[in-house]
Amino acid sequence: MIGRLNHIAIAVPDLEAAAAQYRDTLGAAVGQPQDEPDHGVTVIFIQLPNTKLELLYPLGDDSPIRGFLEKNPSGGIHHMCFEVDDILAARDRLKSEGARVLGSGEPKIGAHGKPVLFLHPKDFNGCLIELEQI
Amino acid sequence: MIGRLNHIAIAVPDLEAAAAQYRDTLGAAVGQPQDEPDHGVTVIFIQLPNTKLELLYPLGDDSPIRGFLEKNPSGGIHHMCFEVDDILAARDRLKSEGARVLGSGEPKIGAHGKPVLFLHPKDFNGCLIELEQI
Repeated sequence: MIGRLNHIAIAVPDLEAAAAQYRDTLGAAVGQPQDEPDHGVTVIFIQLPNTKLELLYPLGDDSPIRGFLEKNPSGGIHHMCFEVDDILAARDRLKSEGARVLGSGEPKIGAHGKPVLFLHPKDFNGCLIELEQI
Repeated sequence: MIGRLNHIAIAVPDLEAAAAQYRDTLGAAVGQPQDEPDHGVTVIFIQLPNTKLELLYPLGDDSPIRGFLEKNPSGGIHHMCFEVDDILAARDRLKSEGARVLGSGEPKIGAHGKPVLFLHPKDFNGCLIELEQI
């Protein structure tokens, strides 16, 4: 069911410093910051040859990553995103296996303009998993 | 400098349950457990179309992931591994930029039989980064 790893998302306490580090120290292809007000984050994409990293920084008071950064002040890997062909079929299969889908269970439009869902980390070895329909 | 994402490593509290979940619930291509006594882990590789996941379970009393699982009993993302062409050149560039390389600073032979180094998570937004020479 799951396909490609679309991205790894990393919450960072200092977006400019993290971008400079990936660009200058690690020599990666680092994009420009993009505000995503609907998702409460400012994002910088880092393109690797086979997948992407996404640096996340809180935007607004209700940012979903603010709590994560309070618990992890240095930052950390926030989630990983797998691609699926049919997000509703994926959701129904997961629910029938007892996995919890976060929120209402209805896909939302994610930062890439495509339908996404998040799965409960307690059901997946402590890892927050995003599914994105491609 | 960094190239492909070679893998994401996930420490899990129950290797069989995690493997069954990725195989049956998430529908991924899950391999057989491999003991890596030199690294203190039993590993299961999960092949995605563009990269790999590695499920890690402690092997032996000195396993480097035992402490991680004590702090994170549900499991969690332990590290991510980027490929580099020349690990000594990468190490020297990183050190000259002030990043800390874990251990002696000399590459060890990793679980894939290739030279690897780990970078200090405090220097990289709370993320443990492995570099592997390909």
